[in-house]
Amino acid sequence: MKILAITGIRSEYDILFPVLHELRKDNKICIAASGAHLSDQYNNTLKYIVKDKFKVVDLIDSLISTDRLVQRSKGIGLLIQGLSQCVERENPDMLIVVGDREESIAAAIVANYMNKILVHIAGGDPVYGNADDPIRFAVSKLAHLHCCLAKAHAKNLLKIGEEKFRVFFTGNPSYANIKKIPIIKKKVLLKKLKINNPNYIVLIKHPLSSEYEDVYSQMKITLKSLKFFCETFNYKTVCIYPNSDPGSYQIRKAVNEYKNQKWLIKFTTLPRVDFINLIRNTKALIGNSSMGILESPFYKIPAINIGNRQKGRIHAINTEFVPHSINEIIKSLKKACFNKLYLKKIKNLKNPYGDSTAPKKICQAIKKINLKDSKWIIKKNL
Amino acid sequence: MKILAITGIRSEYDILFPVLHELRKDNKICIAASGAHLSDQYNNTLKYIVKDKFKVVDLIDSLISTDRLVQRSKGIGLLIQGLSQCVERENPDMLIVVGDREESIAAAIVANYMNKILVHIAGGDPVYGNADDPIRFAVSKLAHLHCCLAKAHAKNLLKIGEEKFRVFFTGNPSYANIKKIPIIKKKVLLKKLKINNPNYIVLIKHPLSSEYEDVYSQMKITLKSLKFFCETFNYKTVCIYPNSDPGSYQIRKAVNEYKNQKWLIKFTTLPRVDFINLIRNTKALIGNSSMGILESPFYKIPAINIGNRQKGRIHAINTEFVPHSINEIIKSLKKACFNKLYLKKIKNLKNPYGDSTAPKKICQAIKKINLKDSKWIIKKNL
Amino acid sequence: MKILAITGIRSEYDILFPVLHELRKDNKICIAASGAHLSDQYNNTLKYIVKDKFKVVDLIDSLISTDRLVQRSKGIGLLIQGLSQCVERENPDMLIVVGDREESIAAAIVANYMNKILVHIAGGDPVYGNADDPIRFAVSKLAHLHCCLAKAHAKNLLKIGEEKFRVFFTGNPSYANIKKIPIIKKKVLLKKLKINNPNYIVLIKHPLSSEYEDVYSQMKITLKSLKFFCETFNYKTVCIYPNSDPGSYQIRKAVNEYKNQKWLIKFTTLPRVDFINLIRNTKALIGNSSMGILESPFYKIPAINIGNRQKGRIHAINTEFVPHSINEIIKSLKKACFNKLYLKKIKNLKNPYGDSTAPKKICQAIKKINLKDSKWIIKKNL
Amino acid sequence: MKILAITGIRSEYDILFPVLHELRKDNKICIAASGAHLSDQYNNTLKYIVKDKFKVVDLIDSLISTDRLVQRSKGIGLLIQGLSQCVERENPDMLIVVGDREESIAAAIVANYMNKILVHIAGGDPVYGNADDPIRFAVSKLAHLHCCLAKAHAKNLLKIGEEKFRVFFTGNPSYANIKKIPIIKKKVLLKKLKINNPNYIVLIKHPLSSEYEDVYSQMKITLKSLKFFCETFNYKTVCIYPNSDPGSYQIRKAVNEYKNQKWLIKFTTLPRVDFINLIRNTKALIGNSSMGILESPFYKIPAINIGNRQKGRIHAINTEFVPHSINEIIKSLKKACFNKLYLKKIKNLKNPYGDSTAPKKICQAIKKINLKDSKWIIKKNL
Repeated sequence: MKILAITGIRSEYDILFPVLHELRKDNKICIAASGAHLSDQYNNTLKYIVKDKFKVVDLIDSLISTDRLVQRSKGIGLLIQGLSQCVERENPDMLIVVGDREESIAAAIVANYMNKILVHIAGGDPVYGNADDPIRFAVSKLAHLHCCLAKAHAKNLLKIGEEKFRVFFTGNPSYANIKKIPIIKKKVLLKKLKINNPNYIVLIKHPLSSEYEDVYSQMKITLKSLKFFCETFNYKTVCIYPNSDPGSYQIRKAVNEYKNQKWLIKFTTLPRVDFINLIRNTKALIGNSSMGILESPFYKIPAINIGNRQKGRIHAINTEFVPHSINEIIKSLKKACFNKLYLKKIKNLKNPYGDSTAPKKICQAIKKINLKDSKWIIKKNL
Repeated sequence: MKILAITGIRSEYDILFPVLHELRKDNKICIAASGAHLSDQYNNTLKYIVKDKFKVVDLIDSLISTDRLVQRSKGIGLLIQGLSQCVERENPDMLIVVGDREESIAAAIVANYMNKILVHIAGGDPVYGNADDPIRFAVSKLAHLHCCLAKAHAKNLLKIGEEKFRVFFTGNPSYANIKKIPIIKKKVLLKKLKINNPNYIVLIKHPLSSEYEDVYSQMKITLKSLKFFCETFNYKTVCIYPNSDPGSYQIRKAVNEYKNQKWLIKFTTLPRVDFINLIRNTKALIGNSSMGILESPFYKIPAINIGNRQKGRIHAINTEFVPHSINEIIKSLKKACFNKLYLKKIKNLKNPYGDSTAPKKICQAIKKINLKDSKWIIKKNL
Repeated sequence: MKILAITGIRSEYDILFPVLHELRKDNKICIAASGAHLSDQYNNTLKYIVKDKFKVVDLIDSLISTDRLVQRSKGIGLLIQGLSQCVERENPDMLIVVGDREESIAAAIVANYMNKILVHIAGGDPVYGNADDPIRFAVSKLAHLHCCLAKAHAKNLLKIGEEKFRVFFTGNPSYANIKKIPIIKKKVLLKKLKINNPNYIVLIKHPLSSEYEDVYSQMKITLKSLKFFCETFNYKTVCIYPNSDPGSYQIRKAVNEYKNQKWLIKFTTLPRVDFINLIRNTKALIGNSSMGILESPFYKIPAINIGNRQKGRIHAINTEFVPHSINEIIKSLKKACFNKLYLKKIKNLKNPYGDSTAPKKICQAIKKINLKDSKWIIKKNL
Repeated sequence: MKILAITGIRSEYDILFPVLHELRKDNKICIAASGAHLSDQYNNTLKYIVKDKFKVVDLIDSLISTDRLVQRSKGIGLLIQGLSQCVERENPDMLIVVGDREESIAAAIVANYMNKILVHIAGGDPVYGNADDPIRFAVSKLAHLHCCLAKAHAKNLLKIGEEKFRVFFTGNPSYANIKKIPIIKKKVLLKKLKINNPNYIVLIKHPLSSEYEDVYSQMKITLKSLKFFCETFNYKTVCIYPNSDPGSYQIRKAVNEYKNQKWLIKFTTLPRVDFINLIRNTKALIGNSSMGILESPFYKIPAINIGNRQKGRIHAINTEFVPHSINEIIKSLKKACFNKLYLKKIKNLKNPYGDSTAPKKICQAIKKINLKDSKWIIKKNL
């Protein structure tokens, strides 16, 4: 079968990659790359796709250089147009997408009107508060095969009327990838990344659309808390810059105000091998990235989620939710770094997001699709 | 409150109009017009919106002149871009849309990313088989207020996790419009429209995306059945041309092959007053238009739905479902035209789609929205 | 060399085809098809390109279904976006376009910013009054190689500062095509096209942008004149429907008002072989198509150009210019059909648009391009 | 008259502003803002337009976040679509644009097809080598009124066939603006901008499309030269970041490699009053900005143009052209900073780009347009 994957950002490609790698054993894979992958400001991550030796069949620019809310909907308009042209020419048997970003809804719409099967990874996740979240469920109503990261997600899709034969619990495919990445010794890593302190915390914070106006002040609170903690306990903060969503310039602005400060080290993005080893060795993950929910339990590291961005999500016991309060953030940092009982518990946590077999399970689910049986393409909602 | 309505085609505007007319008593209404409204091929129905004295704030072209499947997704791309520009400038408090067409999903996406309330009329309808149908449910997952045409639809939305405070059964707003339209005496109407026979059947047939390849042959079967029936029993068929969906050229082609035939009269579109009086006086409605389900029970006329386009839909006893079979179609035409017991039953039918109070009920539902309460804008799915 | 041709309409493809056919002997040719080629309303002429066995690398929809002036500029926006995606992926050495329509300026812009050579056929033509005309000259200022239809055109390009090494007089490539088309005997043709009269006039009339408001009334004058002439002298008019430009619906509307009239026969488009034989046998060509200027002298038939659409153009003695006046039009029809002296002169006319060697000459000109010499890509205007 | 201005970047708005300010005394002015004006990366310069109290009627995003060549043509596609929607709604009498960037050609195309007058400032400039340059001439072929910065430019337009009544020499309107900007004392300015040395050179360097591959290495040469000069003679370099053209990331990258170096001070953009006073007090302007040609003679400061970006342009004696050679650059820096005879000559230079009366002259030229006389809208090329 010919399968077209659509990807727009590094974080989502990291989930897609192990699936495509497994799929390419038996199928023809091609990729349409868009969004931040094509942006030098976001480190031009197309290069990683090319390095992974996938056939990139179209470059569809969809990231508009603005911090206004209009950025994402206009980007979807562009994606749909470019992708329609691509799908008509390539004529794949199915499209595959991950998650809740622009690429997922654009692919879902194109697949729907062009009579193509849509495989959706990571539906049914009950998170709320961000513009991404309702999109995820809209995509589920348009998708023909659901590969869920958690059992509870699969149940949610059945509840909202998705037919049982379409729904699979497969787990988080990124684990297969993490597992494969060679271990870099901590010393070597610290030297390579010029982090002159083994005690560091990784900070990743993205804007939340429903709190767009407060992005800057919230980031300031986060940074003040980390400054206090790091300077008090001789820690470093390693900050990875935010994604491209509206409000991200506010976050960058807040971060850039702390320049030449010793406790703070910044990266736009890192090569996958460095990034994964950075996380493996961190004392804690802080911010509001979905990594704190979906990946931190695999690493068995403490995760501190600040604010409302991951509200509603199933999580393991290693994730703490705190409000934008300096006291609360510092308290949870202390717990994450110094509470031995808590750290011991984390070592034995139960992970709701499966294990490293997800890519295989997704391939098996896809194999069940019979293009000649119209039950696959015609969705009978409810 | 400032409310922006998005409309793309006459059939959907006829549902929207009575709602907007009611809303404008207390609110500022503006309209973005798109799709077939702007097409001379579809009779340039923008003129009716202008005649109704609404402020049209942007003309967003989205109807591409092609019969390929790619037409609709590319059109959505255009709509989203034009509408994003419009919404940013007009800055309305909410957007309002009807149904399941391109305009509904485009408006839902723009509203979602731009933090605007989306009012959706006609969600929860369990029809399947057409590209429109999953779109309707995707829009529901993005909408903030649901005004349902049938009680069963409202229940469906609750089942798929929509929060109770967002869901209302209001009935079909087009009834208010039909009721208001002055009666034209049959004789006068026949003369005006040059229909020289009081016994006529109205035919409206649209393409079905999941049977795109068979559109032409299916239409031929329909036309052959009607030709036989009309010539045998001295009836006329009044054919209204199809909508703009891919496959519609095939339907037109089939119709145009019967030129200069006395039993067949064709119209692109008709002024609303003529159209409604045409339906009031028809012996039956045939084809696969949603009118056969949603409006025919209000007119209390027999409706024959050919094929799979309205599968799964709740309907009153006046609607018969038949396959693309000449025998079956003729049989159901005979029943609709000559079976007095059936016609008597139809006069007493129970209509699941409410009554002419829908526009008022929709206004009342909208009044419940409190823009300052974040529960309205933040959707907690499930 | 890899050459990408961009084509949007049958009339322009007929000029392009013999060039591409010649070029494909030594080069890799691919085509991006757009506009009316993809529209069922315009007879889906993509099929002819496919039949000619060219590789079509992208279908770029650019024809919006509306009769408003905005249609063409929005179409160019779409073309540029789709073509940019196509050119980046295909990475041709050069782009080739003909004339003055949307495709020419879109290709010129894409070539300019993407550092590709643009070959332009038919620059330097001093016609004015239509939106197309200034576009032709704008394209010339962006093109890197000019293949002119007339010597005077080549001179015009030198006057406006184009460097001499870029400018070639090649003649009209469509003649090579016309020459090759097999002759159908008149009797056979008339039967095939159901034209029951050997005395017929071919009518092709397009809207003129600067007289957009008058399109309908001007067409009525044309039709009234032809009706009078045909009914008086027992002639037929064979009307070919207009192109897709704004105002074309007005022309169609005017034509459609004469239905069931014996003197008038209508075609949307005709297969090339039928069309060329239709012209070969016509008594005269009337309207305002560029055929009346550019091709009629090759056929040696009288051409009557009504109104301002071809003003300023070099022409042979077989072309008469008349205003929108019934008397004048009838007078010129009489001259074209009955004035033997005039008809004899036409048989010996001198054609400024060259002969059937144009495709070869264009190939030779293209061979002069040296991609490694920066003089070709860097235009030194003036 | 209602006049719609289209602007996409600060440098071009600075030329447009004094004209619009003069025009608004007698006309209704509105602005469509696009491109870098809407980008936080380029300092969101829309704020200056708002501060100048113009009515901004649409925000048209056209700056795609990528450094690939495809960025600019795709941006023009977006601009044309958004602008077509805007022009149809606003229905201005004319459009006004400056120069040779995306906005100029987009506006020219929209005006052409929508029968609107286009006023073009800065046509006829014979510069070559950049993608902008042929665009400028293409716009001239589409424009209805030409306001030229230099007499020689006006002559060039006559040579290329523009009708005499359309062509005016008005001079550079930015001078009126510069003149009005209050003087900040050098001491105050240096303090405000934290420049701790009165001897500084301003560096502005943009990518050149025809040398896209060499952008980075060329910038390195420039920076090495300045580093040597500044460190040797105790000077500072004040670097203003480049525009948004493809290749600009390479320039930023090169600049960012010199962080924490004392000789180098960087700004994204500066408020107009600061910027103009910065230039007033600089020892020299270096790089390849058009300021070095078009504005430096008004300031009477030495300008060093490195490389081919301004080739072909008329210039005063204060501008030196040097290749990308460290020796040559240093030599010309010495001349600019230390050669008293040269500096004296500069004080008495003759400026080919007029004086501060340009805005008034442009208004007078626009007043000559008679919308009812079709000679204005119908261009008779040649």
